[in-house]
This record gives sequence, structure tokens and C-alpha cells, in this order.
Amino acid sequence: MAALVRRRSLYLLLSVCPFLLGPGANGGRCGYQACPAIKPGMLNVHLVPHTHDDVGWLKTVDQYYYGGQTNTQRAGVQYILDSVITELQADPRRRFIYVEVAFFYRWWRQQSDSMKELVKQLVDEGRLEFVNGGWCMNDEATTHYSSIIDQMTLGFQFLNNTFGKCGRPRVAWHIDPFGHSREQASLFAQMGFDGFFFGRLDYQDKRNRENEREMEQVWRASVNLPEPSADLFTGVLPNGYNPPRMFCWDMLCSDEPIKDDKNLDEYNVDQIVYYFNQTAYKQATHYRTNHIIMTMGSDFHFQDANMWYKNLDKLIKYVNAAQETGSNVNVLYSTPSCYLYELNRANLTWSVKSDDFFPYADGPHEFWTGYFTSRPALKRYERLSNNFLQVCNQLEVLAAADSRSGPYGVGDSSVLRKAMAVAQHHDAVSGTEKQHVANDYAKKLARGWEQCEVLVSNALSSLSGMKQNFIFCDQLNISVCHGIEELSKFTVTLYNPLARAVNVYVRIPVNGTEYTVHDPRAGLVPNQYIRVTFDAHTGLINGIENLLKNLSLPITQSFHWYTASTGDKVSSQPSGAYIFRPKQEQPLPTAKNVKTYTVQTDLFQEVYQNFSAWCSQVVRLYKDQQFVELEWTVGPIPVGDGVGKEVISRFDTSLKTKGIFYTDSNGREILTRRRDYRPTWKLEQTEPVAGNYFPVNSRIYMKDSKMQLTVLTDRSQGGSSIKDGSLELMVHRRLLCDDNRGVGEALSEPGYDGKGLVVRGKHLVFLDTVSASAELHRLQAQAEYMAPWTVMAQGTGTAYSSRPKHIAEFSALKEELPPNVHLLTLAQWDSQSFLIRLEHQFEMGESSVYSKPITVDLANLFSTFKIISVEEMSLGFNQRKEDVSRLKWRTGPAKDSVKSASSRKDSSKHEVVLNPMEIRTFRVRIQYL
Amino acid sequence: MAALVRRRSLYLLLSVCPFLLGPGANGGRCGYQACPAIKPGMLNVHLVPHTHDDVGWLKTVDQYYYGGQTNTQRAGVQYILDSVITELQADPRRRFIYVEVAFFYRWWRQQSDSMKELVKQLVDEGRLEFVNGGWCMNDEATTHYSSIIDQMTLGFQFLNNTFGKCGRPRVAWHIDPFGHSREQASLFAQMGFDGFFFGRLDYQDKRNRENEREMEQVWRASVNLPEPSADLFTGVLPNGYNPPRMFCWDMLCSDEPIKDDKNLDEYNVDQIVYYFNQTAYKQATHYRTNHIIMTMGSDFHFQDANMWYKNLDKLIKYVNAAQETGSNVNVLYSTPSCYLYELNRANLTWSVKSDDFFPYADGPHEFWTGYFTSRPALKRYERLSNNFLQVCNQLEVLAAADSRSGPYGVGDSSVLRKAMAVAQHHDAVSGTEKQHVANDYAKKLARGWEQCEVLVSNALSSLSGMKQNFIFCDQLNISVCHGIEELSKFTVTLYNPLARAVNVYVRIPVNGTEYTVHDPRAGLVPNQYIRVTFDAHTGLINGIENLLKNLSLPITQSFHWYTASTGDKVSSQPSGAYIFRPKQEQPLPTAKNVKTYTVQTDLFQEVYQNFSAWCSQVVRLYKDQQFVELEWTVGPIPVGDGVGKEVISRFDTSLKTKGIFYTDSNGREILTRRRDYRPTWKLEQTEPVAGNYFPVNSRIYMKDSKMQLTVLTDRSQGGSSIKDGSLELMVHRRLLCDDNRGVGEALSEPGYDGKGLVVRGKHLVFLDTVSASAELHRLQAQAEYMAPWTVMAQGTGTAYSSRPKHIAEFSALKEELPPNVHLLTLAQWDSQSFLIRLEHQFEMGESSVYSKPITVDLANLFSTFKIISVEEMSLGFNQRKEDVSRLKWRTGPAKDSVKSASSRKDSSKHEVVLNPMEIRTFRVRIQYL
Repeated sequence: MAALVRRRSLYLLLSVCPFLLGPGANGGRCGYQACPAIKPGMLNVHLVPHTHDDVGWLKTVDQYYYGGQTNTQRAGVQYILDSVITELQADPRRRFIYVEVAFFYRWWRQQSDSMKELVKQLVDEGRLEFVNGGWCMNDEATTHYSSIIDQMTLGFQFLNNTFGKCGRPRVAWHIDPFGHSREQASLFAQMGFDGFFFGRLDYQDKRNRENEREMEQVWRASVNLPEPSADLFTGVLPNGYNPPRMFCWDMLCSDEPIKDDKNLDEYNVDQIVYYFNQTAYKQATHYRTNHIIMTMGSDFHFQDANMWYKNLDKLIKYVNAAQETGSNVNVLYSTPSCYLYELNRANLTWSVKSDDFFPYADGPHEFWTGYFTSRPALKRYERLSNNFLQVCNQLEVLAAADSRSGPYGVGDSSVLRKAMAVAQHHDAVSGTEKQHVANDYAKKLARGWEQCEVLVSNALSSLSGMKQNFIFCDQLNISVCHGIEELSKFTVTLYNPLARAVNVYVRIPVNGTEYTVHDPRAGLVPNQYIRVTFDAHTGLINGIENLLKNLSLPITQSFHWYTASTGDKVSSQPSGAYIFRPKQEQPLPTAKNVKTYTVQTDLFQEVYQNFSAWCSQVVRLYKDQQFVELEWTVGPIPVGDGVGKEVISRFDTSLKTKGIFYTDSNGREILTRRRDYRPTWKLEQTEPVAGNYFPVNSRIYMKDSKMQLTVLTDRSQGGSSIKDGSLELMVHRRLLCDDNRGVGEALSEPGYDGKGLVVRGKHLVFLDTVSASAELHRLQAQAEYMAPWTVMAQGTGTAYSSRPKHIAEFSALKEELPPNVHLLTLAQWDSQSFLIRLEHQFEMGESSVYSKPITVDLANLFSTFKIISVEEMSLGFNQRKEDVSRLKWRTGPAKDSVKSASSRKDSSKHEVVLNPMEIRTFRVRIQYL
Repeated sequence: MAALVRRRSLYLLLSVCPFLLGPGANGGRCGYQACPAIKPGMLNVHLVPHTHDDVGWLKTVDQYYYGGQTNTQRAGVQYILDSVITELQADPRRRFIYVEVAFFYRWWRQQSDSMKELVKQLVDEGRLEFVNGGWCMNDEATTHYSSIIDQMTLGFQFLNNTFGKCGRPRVAWHIDPFGHSREQASLFAQMGFDGFFFGRLDYQDKRNRENEREMEQVWRASVNLPEPSADLFTGVLPNGYNPPRMFCWDMLCSDEPIKDDKNLDEYNVDQIVYYFNQTAYKQATHYRTNHIIMTMGSDFHFQDANMWYKNLDKLIKYVNAAQETGSNVNVLYSTPSCYLYELNRANLTWSVKSDDFFPYADGPHEFWTGYFTSRPALKRYERLSNNFLQVCNQLEVLAAADSRSGPYGVGDSSVLRKAMAVAQHHDAVSGTEKQHVANDYAKKLARGWEQCEVLVSNALSSLSGMKQNFIFCDQLNISVCHGIEELSKFTVTLYNPLARAVNVYVRIPVNGTEYTVHDPRAGLVPNQYIRVTFDAHTGLINGIENLLKNLSLPITQSFHWYTASTGDKVSSQPSGAYIFRPKQEQPLPTAKNVKTYTVQTDLFQEVYQNFSAWCSQVVRLYKDQQFVELEWTVGPIPVGDGVGKEVISRFDTSLKTKGIFYTDSNGREILTRRRDYRPTWKLEQTEPVAGNYFPVNSRIYMKDSKMQLTVLTDRSQGGSSIKDGSLELMVHRRLLCDDNRGVGEALSEPGYDGKGLVVRGKHLVFLDTVSASAELHRLQAQAEYMAPWTVMAQGTGTAYSSRPKHIAEFSALKEELPPNVHLLTLAQWDSQSFLIRLEHQFEMGESSVYSKPITVDLANLFSTFKIISVEEMSLGFNQRKEDVSRLKWRTGPAKDSVKSASSRKDSSKHEVVLNPMEIRTFRVRIQYL
């Protein structure tokens, strides 16, 4: 059954008064002041000892921490941190950077007080420096901005609490993610980072940049935010994140050590110095200053730090000794921030880029566009978990201590918060991990759910005054809710985490045939917006009409699959977890004719389409909604024929799109995509399908001058427009080959019964005018990722003693926020304060109504507490906004067009102005009413 | 040509007055006093962190030191020592033992003063302990006692000079050599070791010892030396030298770390503690005290010591914590000497063993008897290099500083001394290393020769007063001496390193047909001792007669080869560098009939036998010698038929030997061998040939009541008596399979041209009465391994200014020593003192004349210097004899018969008494005359 329920929810109130940040600054000589001396007249080579520690990939995050399962991978982070600290201690010239707080946090809590003091000293002196500093190094293609911000904030929180200002990362460091989103750069800029380094970009792009000395430039990462608030100095590392050839001295490497005892055979100092200088000079030809960087480390390096440092010490000694005989190369231990600082001091004018770095190809025919879709069930679970985490966060704030300890036991939002942070890793939600690791991510999320379910139960009891036998229907995705289906009577509680009212349909699996819904505001909203037509012969959708706007578009929607390449004469590259490489350009239809049947009620219409034994779809229209809901179910994809398959849902129309389509960037700003084209270099296209795939985090659309067809997704997927008027989204993939990027498994998810994974999902399709579309997809996308949460209960419960009376409805807000203002975050920060983020969720020019700056009056908005003090913070919550001081860079004109935005200021302390796409972050102290 | 030259040589003089040893004792709490506390009522588990660092095997010693060539093996000793020191420093409870001074010495000289001080402190406190302490861990099957003593002395010298008394090893530690010789144990006892531990012994022997709790006992290692001077407490380690299963925490291991954070998945402390206690209790059932030892380490372990120590710390913490809940297991960091000390304190009566541990089999059909012969050319080069080293040592003493710097440049005996020490390693002279490593050993020896050739040239010039154009004919083994062959006139200088006169034939390749020999004492010694008869039909030897004693023995001598097994249905074990496993019991003859021709001169008779294109022999009789010389040339062994071959020389006679034959132990005492029999357990024989092979370092013989047939070898070889009356020696082997013991190469030596190695060697055959045989073979064996050295020179040279006149003959001794006294060592020790060893070279009862104690009067024996002071030392020269104080052990009766010997004392300070097989070692200071 389904019941339509309308819910109003949170209101927000802020008053502004300052308080001091975190544990306070310490007296360390960290930051740029702690950088090593360079030699101005020479080529300065910054050696950056580092380790890249995946927060799960071939092994689980816990396995990586301890270093078990060595037959899978010899990688133990505990040993890395142990031995690096020891080696840093041995020589004050040595430097090290660390990145992944998910690991560091595990290590830290096992250390003695004296070790903690030692590490603090190293951090204070800039010898150990945190870069990036998120909980993990998140993926950029398949992550949602809400969760990126959360995971970075979680890492920053640890660093801030533990090390104070010397622990604040100044450089973003995404050396491994497989392509780079513009939104990620924008978020980094808003977090206060001075620069950004990464390793992976299209091989053609890299070649051109090397030739044109454009390896380093300024990325203008938003067309909405005023310069330079989303400008981020961005450097492409010379060698991915690996050391130059011949200079890898980890226990995982095989290069010859420096053998400097002339009494022993194989003395090699002279040849090492010669080859190093050659390498440095060659690298310098690709960069603009007399500073270059070399990343001395790689995946899980420095488990035995002595090997690295001992040889690096010698390298530095002997290379610099050659200066006495005329060498012009000066080599030093350094960090990315110290290197960045020298680039900044060079005071050059840097070119500007404003597109993104997708898709990534590391060679011809080798497009990393498969992972945009890999593990679609995990991708959905991750997105849904964020929804629940936000609900959990908010209820923790609203019910305060009652939520964390109550009649259901001890609840804890941090378990889900950490699990979600880990899931953002570039081998987690990306789908590029081994199967058992994917299972572990899901298990960690499920454990987080368990804790949040306790917390939510406590909170709901506290807020409602009723203790109920709550049932969280975690299997609604397969239309199962054990404990409810058998009941003749049950209670449904909805919590809407949005700061505005939404209309939602709640679908509950039941066994009965007739139910009466008792709802505080039950009522229908009849309003017929949209019509879908079907081909009587094939059973496929053949058209959509917007009745309100009198728009009609012939559309054929169907499911096809690409045959996965296993390598061919042109290239040995197969399709795999990372890489999408179809065997032919033309996908094959799953069915030419589909069986259909129709269900119609007062609330909705449904057409069931059966494409094959493993592919079906429900086309659903709700009476009061302006979209067509396509609920697809795909799998187990059959591979008994020995053929891997990559399944797409495709919309073919007659729209004249001229090769152009649009995709979102991490759920926020929209990027224009053009087939067989890259904005900043002349593309030699080698894969006409895979080379045109882009990440779709929340929406993809195409348009002509008159109308726009928009598809919202419920998770990240790969999508494209392979021919004009056509849109496609890859929904599921099952492969039989590994694609030789290290994961060492074919992506063939077994599902719960081993026969292959079945995936269900939704596409919401809008057809509207171009000018009206943003208002639809912006609000609906927001309502999808922060949907009202449904909690069932057996019976009606009993009065809960701590509250005077049972209340059936509750709002934390005095009034709802305007539609273009989004309450992005409302969460407990520490025992004294909350974290609140407000977001303007429209771009400039998207909507005549909503794309304007808007002022939110913060006074007295919350119904349950009063705000005592407010401090505006940087996006990552590790600096007061007023303390943010980023390095300044002189920029030339952008190669592609960048609209300029102008800043607006708050008119008063109580009235917060939000410009298009702006996120403002506040730390507040409250008093419960 | 050949000329017979008689040479008298060294005399020796000693006067006895004491002086203090070495750098003096320091104040450290090392030794047994530094041992950790144990818990008397519990099962104490001594964890011994250790590393086993082969001084060359798959990589060269230098490659192992630095850790290059990681694709061959990830093993870098520099990192081991670096990281162990760091980790020892971190916690005073931790212990480590180190063994191979060849590596430690390389590391030490690269350390800073402060690091040296730190290491000294660790040694002083017993936290770092040296065990064994030789330059390497020498092989026991293929080494000669002279070189064993030298290599141990070289290691001890470094430790003594560097660390003083706290650096003196108290425990011998041969955890890896492939079987154990009795002479090795005897030498260890004489070096002052308190105990001996090893890892490898016959699998049946081990099983029986476990069952009977005889894993530890007293080895009575000499039948000549008085008890307990050659008694050595000997322990068989429980698990080779590896950790128990599940507890290997090196970067080269794959066991799960201890995961003790209950917040993380896979917490495993409880199961680790349970399994450890199980392991300990099970091990304790094989041992007699409430102390057991576990070797925590293996090949090249501890490159990242933190991994080991971190997990061992936790193991100790959690296992001992369980004592609070009733566990009876106490685990502690310890060392072999601390474990030994507890065994000694147990004050039990230990059983006694007096045979040896050869041959070694690690399973049925897996006899490690191939390496007795593997790489026969290297084995000969090693033996010959020792000969030259002794010559070099002696001339350095005799010519003093003139030898080290003179007209030929700077000479240095230490290069050859170190190369020889390295060559004693159990993967060096043993022949079980990779080919490139074997080449490196040979190269290092050749470099040592170069330095000694300079030293010898300087010395000869100094002693003779003549500067000559010396030519060292290093290729006499292939009858080549470039620079001499073309000359019509040249000078031959002979240096006899023995302390008695010997008659030798010198063979020099020349192109002319007639030479006149000008010799200070030219003259022939006609005396026809022996006759060899040949079968007219086959061309083979068919008899030997001793004309003097009127003995005659029909003997058929011929060459055969065993087909090397490549594995079969019975066992997959192939023949390889380590293992000998013939496919059939019966070897195949290389030829049934051989072509012969005869050469006869006044000095010798020769019969040339041509067995095949790759096998020939010269049967040679010298007029004044009592042996038949068989000079065989074998190779390249053909393997074009895909069959590996193991070539033997076999002597078949009618002697009734009843399964008994005799082999020497490292060139000294003789052990009785019995076919298909072991003295201490009931053998289940699985290989009737390979299982009866024993190492022959210098001689093998068989006898009946009337006569004895003795064969002396010029290098170590495997030998046996497979049927009564038959003796065989394996002379060469070429194989096509690796035998799966790690070396990873088939033993197929390429030779100089890649077509296969040709090997030439000599067997000296004696036929005499049983009672007279020892006098022959003892003296001749000595004369072979310390043979007179031949140096050629173009022309006659020019007067050398530093000496008044040219002398043509010189002796350093005033008179020769008796035949039963051997000048084992005469070498420079340091700038002030010499090292002298005198040896009684007969066993009790071997000779009616020579098997008696003998007194050597040391007064005024040397002709070139006067001895100022004398200090008697332990055999390894790291303790004054009077300071030697070994642990005492109560012993039961020996299982096999042990003759008891009694001690005799010197009658005066000037008269040194030598008992049979006794070696006495002196440190002397001298004044040149």
C-alpha cells in the first residue's frame, strides 16, 4: 500500500556572537615558517616522503591498519606510523606527510602519552605534516558533496582537537582518485586550502600540459562563487604519486640501494647522482619555476621507513656534494605545502582552468568510466546511509542527551558518521575494491545504522513522549519489512530532515488488502501534471507530455547492454571495475517487445514492463508529482554465455542537442558536456562510447531551445549522450575479466545467493521548459537525497515517562526555509556546540525566482532551543571564517568562459545572505527551551 | 717438466711470559648475569629474536649487505642492524642476538661514533648478544679444520677488539648447516663455548629424540682429547630456526599480527594466547626442563624490526597476563645463552653422544649428500687458497713490515683472510649457492691472491735480497703458466710452509724439450715403493702392490656415473645442489675399455687413461713416493641427453670390510662409518646409495685385518662404500633440476666457455698395513693442504738494496719439528704480536711411533726473531687459556663407545707438551734479530 503524507519540519534560528576555536593554537613553528631553506640560484628538488594508504581496497580498512592478510597485500599502516615517527625523531631534517585520518586515528588511540607528546612536537615543528586531512582521500566521481564535506570535516575535527592549528592541512592532496571533479576543487577552496595536487589525469591532457608547461595553474572551480573564493591553485604531480624510476627505496620496491662503501662491490654513488640530476633536469622542463617536486613513496610505503630515509639521506648528501664541483641541483626534504609556498613566492601569473578532469584515461582505449557505475547497490546504500545519517544527526541535536541514552539503550551517531566517511574513499563508493572489502563497507554502514536506529528511537520517544516498538524497515528496497507485514495495525512515523515541507509517498509492504490510514493531516492533492504514452506493439514508453506546459516529446526508453570487451587487436584492455570498454559501439536491446500490465489507484498509476527474466521496470506516475518515476530492477545479469554485460537505460528523442548534454558535479553545479570534445585540448578520441561517459551524481539532462529532458538518479551512475537527442545511464554491470588496475578481481557481484546481484533503482524524469526545469530538479534532487525517514512501530506504544504527553506531530522549526535555502547540516559538534550549514541550492540564472541572493533571518527559528552564540566557520569547520587567509595567486584569463559572480554581504548580524551556490557554516551554542 | 726439490723450512721458538688480553674488560653487566628473570614454578618460554644472514647464497655477500637485487631475494643486512638497534633502544626488555661478523663488520665501519657508543652499551647490558661470532656460520661437511679455526678467529678478533669481554660469544649457533661434524663440536669446545644449538638433523633422528626427550645432551666430540675438553652441550632447536607456526611477524612472513583493539574487526588476542600456550605445552613434552626456547626469526628477518618486536611485546603482555587467571606459561625475551644457563642450573644428568650428525635427511629419499661434492672446482680453489693464505701469513711474519710495503707495492694478507673466511660459509664452499654467487666467492679469493702475491713478492725480495720479476702461475691446474712457457731460462722459488722438510715434485709447463735444473741441493731419491698393474684388455688398473711390505691387492679403479633422479613415483625429490638422489642404485661405467699410453722418466712413470671425451686420468708413480697419484680430469659432463650425471671414481677390491669404512672429520679425527646404520638410532634406509654417503674432507679408507687402502683427496668430496671392498668418491656432478631447497638453480656449472665445467683433481692412493697407514696419510695429507708454494721469475733478478746479499736458501726455523707436530698457524695478529698454533696431528693408537704425547722445546727455534713473551690462548684466540671457564654438565654414560684420554701437563714453561690431536694456541711478542 502507499499513503501520501505531507510533513513540515525543521526551522532554524541563529544569533551571532563569537567564541574561540578548538583547543587553541600552540607555540609550534609549523606552517610555511617551518619550511626548509632552499637555494635560490639552483634547481631545487623537493623530496616529499609520503605514503598512500587506501582506506580499504584489496583488504578492509581494519586489515590494512594491522597489516594482516599479507598474501593479499603486504600493507600494515600501524607499522608505517610507528616507523616513520621513529625515523623522523632520528633526524630533524627529515619530513613526512600523512593524509588519511581514518588510519591515523586508529593508531593514535593506541599510543602512550609520551609518544603522543613526541608526535605533537613533530607536528609543531613541521616535521610531520598533515595534508588533505580528511577521514579518507575521497573519490571524486561517485561521491555526493554532502558526504564529501562530512568526511573532510570529520578528519579535520580529529586533527584540530588533537594538534590545534599546526594540525590544519594547508594543501589538498588527491594523488590517486581517478579523475577530478570541479566541485571537489570548489569545496577544497572553501575549506581554506592553499593548493591542490593530484596524480591522475588524461594521458593526452598531461602530455599537452608538459609540453606547454601548464602542469600547474589556477582552477576556477565555480561559475557562481565570486573570485577567488573557489579558485584553487592546482598542480599535476610529475610521476603520478610515485618516485622517479630508480629511486624507490621502500621494502615494497626493487630499486638498488645507494651503495656508498667503496670497499664493497657495486659502489654506485656516481651513477645514482648522475641519473638523479638527469631526471631532475628533464622534469624541470615541464614546470615553470626553479622548484620541482618528487613524491618519494607510494601505496603503503614506509612500513620500514628506515629503508627510505637512509637512502634519501645519502641521495641528498651526494647530490648536494656535487654542487662543489659545479652541479646546479639542490635537493632537500620538503612537503607539498613547502613546495607550494615556493611556487607562490615565485609570483608568476598562472593560467586559469574552469572545466574538470573527467573522464580519466591512462592510455588509448583505457577510460576509467566503468567505476562511475560499478557496484550500484553499494552506491545506493551509501547514498541512503547519508540520508539516515543526516536524520540521525538532526535528531541528536533535537533530542539532545535523551537521544544518546534512552529507553532503547545507548545510541551513537559517530559509528555511522565514520562508516560513511570511510565509504567516501576512492576505492569504496567508487566500486573498485575487492568483493570482501565491499562487503565490509556495507557491514560498517549497517553497524552505523544499528547505532543510529537506537539514537533515533530514543529521540523519537523523547520528542513524542511515547515509547513504541519501533521497527526500521531496512529491506524496503526489496519490498520486505519483517515484523510489519503480518500486522493488522501499525504506526508509521515520518521524519523530514529538510527545512521545508515536502509531499512524499510512503510504500509499505503489507499482507492485508484493506487498510485505513489515520494521519494527522491526511488528504490527497489531485493535480495531473504529466502523461506517459506507450507503444502498443513494443510495450515501450514512446512519449512523455507535460500537460501543464503543453509540451510533448516522443521518447523511446528501453534497456540495452554493451558487450564488455575482453581485449582485442586494437588494445588488450578489457572492461573491468575501473574501466568501461564496450566491444561494439552499439549496445544490444534487452528486449524488443516487453510484456506490460497496468495498476491504477487514486494516488498513482503504474505500468509494469518485463524486459527479460533479469530486467524489468515500473513506470509510475503520482497524482501530485511532476516527474515520471522509472523503477528499474536489473539482475542477475546473465554471464553464462561467457560475455560480460554493461546495462544501460536509454532515452532516445528527437531533440536537436548538437552533441551537448549536462551533468552535475557531485550533486551541485552543472557542467556542460560535449561529445568527443574537451574544453582545454584537442581530443584524439579512441573510445566513442566509453570516452564520452561522465559521472552523474544526481542528474543528467539535455535540451533544445524549447524544452529540457532531465533525469534524476538515486545514486551515482555513469551517463552520456552518445548521439544527439539521446541520453543514457549505466545502471548495472557484470564482468568476467579484471582490468589490470590492481584490484585483481572481475567485477561480478555474487548477490546474496551467489547467483548474481539484483539491483533496483529509480530514475525520475522531468520534461519541462528550459527555464522551469531547474526549479524542479533542484528541489526534487534535494528531497531525494534527504528524504523523510520512515519508522514503523507495532501498535501505538506506551507513554514515555520523561515527557508529559504524547504528541503526534512535531516541528523543530518555527517556519520553513525558502525553497532555495537548504539546511545542509545540523549536527552535534561537541558537548557544547552544534554544526550548522546553510546552502543556497540554485545556480545563477537557473531560475528567475530562486537564483537570487537570499537573506535568512536567523532569529528565533528553532522551536526547541535558543541559540546563544554563533561563529561563522570555514566549510571544513577547522577555522573561523575570519581567520581564513589563503595564499594569493596572480591569474591570467581563463581559456574557457567563466562567468564572474560578485559577493554580497550580510546586512545585519541576524540576517545571513546566501548567494547562489554558497554554503555558509556556523558553529553555534544553544540553550534548550 | 718436473723437478724434484727438497726443502727444509720453518723452526719455531717460544718463550713463555704473560701479557694482558685485548682491549680489556669493560664494566657491563653482560654474560649470564644479564639474563632476564624467569618464573621457577612455570613453563618458561625463552623467545629468541634472531636473524639468519647468509654470507652469500642467492645473492653475493655485498648484495646481501646493501639489500639490492630484491627480485632475487628481499634481504638487506644494513637495514636489519639499523632497525634492530633502534628497537632495542626503545625497550630495555628486548633482546637480540647477532651471528655473522662478516656483515656486522661492514655495518660497523659505516656508523657514527655515537651509534657505536650506543651499540657498545647494548652489548654491555646483554641486550645485544653475539652468538657463534665467527666471520660466517661455516659449513661443517666440506670445510677443513684449518679454515674453520681461521674464520672463527677472524670474527672473534673483531668482536674482541670492538666490544671486549662482553662481545665474547658463549654459545655456538649453527642453525642452518646441513648436518654437523664431530670435529666442529670439538673445535667449538676448545674455543670455550658453553653450548651449541643447531636446527638441522636427520628427520628420523629428530623424531626419536623428541620421543625420548633427548633433544639436548652432551656431545663428546673427540676420542683423543681428555674429558671434558671436547665435551659440548648440544641442543636441537624445536623448529629448525623458525618461529612456531602462526607466530612469524617479519615483513617476510604472512602470519596475522596481534590485533588487540577491540574496536576493530578481527580482534584475535584470545585465540593467539590460546594457540601459543598449546604450542608451548606441546613443545615442552620433547624437552626435559621447565624451560623451552623459541627462535623468533629466520632468514634475513628483522629488516623491519618493529614488526617483530611490536607483536612480540603484545604476545608477552597477553600471554603473561593470563597467569592471573591460572595460566602456567611465562614468556620472556631471552637469548640462547640465557636459555642455556637455565638448562645448566637445572643440574640434570645429560646423556652423551659421540658420533656425528651426517648425513642429513629432511625426509625420506631426501639426503643432503650431494653438496659434499657440488662445485668441485670451487672446493679445490678454496683449499688451495688456504694453502696460499698460510704461506702469506707466514711470510708476513718472517719479513715483517717489509712484506706489507716493498718494491712490489702494498701487500695485505687480510683480503685473502676475509675472502677465505667468507668462503667457509655454508652456502659457499658447500657449493649450494647460485652460480653468480659462486663466481663472486672465486673473485674475492682471486683478489685476496693478488694482495698476497704482492706481500709474498715483497717478502721474498726482502728475505733473499733479490728483486725478481715474479710470476705467480695461477693456472697450473690447467698446465698453463703465461710468461714462463716462452722463456728459455727462469727461476723457481719454493716456499715450504710446513715445519718439517718434504719432498715435492714441481711441474712446470714449458715449451722447450731440454732444461738444466740448477738447484742448491739437487739430487734424486730413488726408492721404488709401489707398483700398479693394468688390465691389458680394458686398460683399467687391476692391482696395486706395496713392494716394501710385500702387500698386493687386486683393485679395479674406474669412473662411473649415477643418473640423477628428477623425481619418481616413490618421491618427487630430484638430485640437486644439496641433494644426491641417483635414479638407480647401480652407476653406469663411463667406459668399459680405456685407451692408454705410458710415459716413463727417471723421476716418474705415467699411464694416461682416456675413458671418454670428457673423462681421463693419469696414473702416476713418483720414484720416492709411497702413493699412487691418480690425476683425473672430468668434464664437461654431457647433458645433451637430458640426463643429469654424478660422476664417481670407484675402487673395487676383494677386501672383506663388513660394511665398515672410515672418513675424516674436517681433516682431523677419523670416524667409523657403517653402511645402512646409525650409531644412535635404528635407521630406516630409503636411499641405499645417497643415504650412505659421507663427507670426505681429506681421506677415506677401508681395511681388513691385514691391509688398508687409503685415498687422500685434494678437496672435500662425498664418498662411500656401497658394497664391501669398494670405495667411491664423487668427483663431479652436473644436474638439470633444482632440488627445491631454495637455491632455485640446477647445478650445471657453465665453465669458462659456457659449455660445462672441466674439473681436474688428484687422489693419492696408499696401500699399506693397517698399523703403518696413519703415518703415511697423516703426513701426506698435511703436506697436500700446506704444500710448498712455487713462484717463478723471469731471469735471475737484481740485487735488492735493503738486504746486503742475495741468498738462495733460507729457513725461518733453526731445526724442523717432529713429524707429529704441525705448525698449524703462524700469523701476524696485530702490530705487536703473532698468533701461533701447534698441533699434534696423530690420533691415539694410530701410530706406534707418533701417537704419543710429544714435547716441543720452544726455546730459540726461530732463526729470524726472538720471542719476548708468550701467552697461551683458547683456540679462537679471544681468551687467555687460564681465563677459560666453561659451564659444567653432569653426564651419563655414552651410548656408543668413547675412549677416554688423559691430560698431560707441560713439564716446564719452555717445553710445550702436545697430546694426540691437541692444538695449542699462543700469542707471542717477538723481536726481530
